[in-house]
Amino acid sequence: MASTDLRFSGRAEHRAWLGTQATLPDGFRIGTTRFTFTPVELPRPARMTITLLALERPTPAFAARFTRNAFPGAPVILGRRRLSAPVLGALVVNNKVSNVCAPDGVEAAERVCAAAARTLGFDPEEVLPASTGVIGWRLPVEEMVAALPAAASALESRSALAGAEAILTTDLYPKVRRAAVGEGSIVGFAKGAGMIEPNLATMLVFLLTDLDVSRERLRSALEAAVEESFNRISVDSDTSTSDSVFLLSSRRRPPPPPGAFEVGLARVCSDLAEDVVRNGEGVRHVVRAAVTGAPDRRAALLVARAVVNSPLFKAAVSGNDPNVGRLLCAVGKVAGAEGLTLDPLRAVMRLGGETVLEGGTMRLDPQKEGRLVSHLRAAELYASAPPVEGVFKPPVDFPSHERCVEIAIDLGLGGGAATVLGADLTHEYVSENADYRS
Amino acid sequence: MASTDLRFSGRAEHRAWLGTQATLPDGFRIGTTRFTFTPVELPRPARMTITLLALERPTPAFAARFTRNAFPGAPVILGRRRLSAPVLGALVVNNKVSNVCAPDGVEAAERVCAAAARTLGFDPEEVLPASTGVIGWRLPVEEMVAALPAAASALESRSALAGAEAILTTDLYPKVRRAAVGEGSIVGFAKGAGMIEPNLATMLVFLLTDLDVSRERLRSALEAAVEESFNRISVDSDTSTSDSVFLLSSRRRPPPPPGAFEVGLARVCSDLAEDVVRNGEGVRHVVRAAVTGAPDRRAALLVARAVVNSPLFKAAVSGNDPNVGRLLCAVGKVAGAEGLTLDPLRAVMRLGGETVLEGGTMRLDPQKEGRLVSHLRAAELYASAPPVEGVFKPPVDFPSHERCVEIAIDLGLGGGAATVLGADLTHEYVSENADYRS
Repeated sequence: MASTDLRFSGRAEHRAWLGTQATLPDGFRIGTTRFTFTPVELPRPARMTITLLALERPTPAFAARFTRNAFPGAPVILGRRRLSAPVLGALVVNNKVSNVCAPDGVEAAERVCAAAARTLGFDPEEVLPASTGVIGWRLPVEEMVAALPAAASALESRSALAGAEAILTTDLYPKVRRAAVGEGSIVGFAKGAGMIEPNLATMLVFLLTDLDVSRERLRSALEAAVEESFNRISVDSDTSTSDSVFLLSSRRRPPPPPGAFEVGLARVCSDLAEDVVRNGEGVRHVVRAAVTGAPDRRAALLVARAVVNSPLFKAAVSGNDPNVGRLLCAVGKVAGAEGLTLDPLRAVMRLGGETVLEGGTMRLDPQKEGRLVSHLRAAELYASAPPVEGVFKPPVDFPSHERCVEIAIDLGLGGGAATVLGADLTHEYVSENADYRS
Repeated sequence: MASTDLRFSGRAEHRAWLGTQATLPDGFRIGTTRFTFTPVELPRPARMTITLLALERPTPAFAARFTRNAFPGAPVILGRRRLSAPVLGALVVNNKVSNVCAPDGVEAAERVCAAAARTLGFDPEEVLPASTGVIGWRLPVEEMVAALPAAASALESRSALAGAEAILTTDLYPKVRRAAVGEGSIVGFAKGAGMIEPNLATMLVFLLTDLDVSRERLRSALEAAVEESFNRISVDSDTSTSDSVFLLSSRRRPPPPPGAFEVGLARVCSDLAEDVVRNGEGVRHVVRAAVTGAPDRRAALLVARAVVNSPLFKAAVSGNDPNVGRLLCAVGKVAGAEGLTLDPLRAVMRLGGETVLEGGTMRLDPQKEGRLVSHLRAAELYASAPPVEGVFKPPVDFPSHERCVEIAIDLGLGGGAATVLGADLTHEYVSENADYRS
């Protein structure tokens, strides 16, 4: 999926490469600031980062896609409303508190947006909020309003890197991807799948372009790109209440050639989506499940998701254990539950290019077992380090390669196909989400 | 769910109590034997246990329910066929190899059944197989046939305990439950949710009664009891290829009063189902999610299952972290994905009796947080011990209590209700399924 091969693994090389990706398109500025506050729900203080992402001039060309979670956060509720606004001038982003099901959450988000608008000289309806963090806590509105001038005075137009870093929580490294298209560019940065101390899996993605693309074209291109990228990944199957993807155009560069914008956007989204999985909590292996020959696309997606979300298979992968029986089990489980009629005689399953099921029976021998173990080891992002004071922590901050555990499943039934990226289940994941306390 | 309160925690007390549960109904005998063999798929030897469960006379009164996994094992395929046989005389049960998608698996199972039938003096069609273990491996038919006479000579008619122990794999302790009904009894024993070194989550349940109940009544009672017990639990959401529940009657005691058999069977099944969760791999907390006020029963089940299968919520529970935002997230996730229209204003969520969501907002404060932590701590089955040579192992072999983490979710929409038992996600689970190698 990723179009850039991160073969280098040094931190300095990675940061330099990120810098090349992060050059802001024309017409955008980003500024951040941090401050301390005391949540009313907690007996001790916490820290919050605010990011202002501002256009030089409000634009009619903006698009967004939001979570399908039935308890959407206040920023999602407000964001959906503002999709019909004539223009958008800025986003105000905070971490630490997701503003989901908090008392008067929508009003709180509106007050922060109004203050950001005043600071930037926009109308309140021209500012969108985005929040990630603890569900149920109240936004510290007064403290946020007081902090906004500092974020505004930090605004800069060169790089998105400060913004990409400011939105991180449990992410190990910033995620920025860029495509040059026509006479302009598309730059995206993402947070996720992260937790805050450790309370919420959230994905926030910001896509910026200076190419002159209409609102309608932006929205259809974003819908298509999201469907094939962020809707094709899973770290732990928990859809957050706050997932949001934004796409803004400053329209400062000439219109791109037909189709080129869509291709560039799809690539940036796919690369970022893969980055999100590769940097998921405790992820030591990225698993790519490619399903073909399904009765239709929905069936292919169901099967691919079942494979990457099977706790047993995920745990086996984390131990470099080619436990392909669990692969079979996961496929059979979802087919049985969803009423998909499979023909075991026609299904072919491969792991790392090795055929493990064909003609209705597993194809296993001690030599093949050795080759499968080698495939899993080669896809490991890092060796698990012993726990420190009972807590497992990944020892790396950048991925050492972009390899995946490659699973190919041909159901032999029809033309439905889908590929989903997932992750293993590790002690580092459990530590991240159980051994720390909020 | 459990009707027996296991307040005692000593191993000797538990074993004595199990003995009182395990008294075999009239007309049954159980014998077991172990042997060593070398799987063709593995370069080293392995051990297998065979259990013979025999009726004194073949009976027309038998019933079974099988996995819905679309890749069912050969014993399941054969078992479905034999449901229409006139009588059943015995079951032959093995661990270590589940005989799923193995070459000529059905033929192998038939050969073992035929040999068991010869040993017991029955017809081959009067014997049913049940297997649990590695998926894809071949049954060691010759070695099994050679071992059957030893199992037959071990047959005894007093207790089911030897059988309940022989079928265990990663289970920590045998699971046996009994109900006295009318002038007879119903006794059940279960294996699961276990793994073999660590290759397969399988549940096998054997229910025996001496009450004179017809085949038709047995089958309808079993279907109803399974739906409300084994179909209401989840340790890790992975439906195995081999799950099977068998119910056999020797018809040696008078017919039970109307309804009494169904009530007794439902209780034995519910108790065993809870035992299976409580003894699930790495389980440190049992979680009971009771959903009411759903539009219908299907919706209630979907929501309850989403809660107990959310990796993030499960991980939080394992750390005694009352991260109720993740509870909200899990409910919203499944509602969004399944198109259930929720009204956040009408939903009420409680954890340990404390209201955490009402009127569309979370109800959290530092004092309540403390009470929620206490509830989680009280439901912990054991304290996590540090890993030994990198592997986490539960330090207990019998549960110290029967408490659950109690979740009550009223969606406020209709009359649909369902209760599902699940478990937390622990380092012990990851160790069981990743840190050992098959």
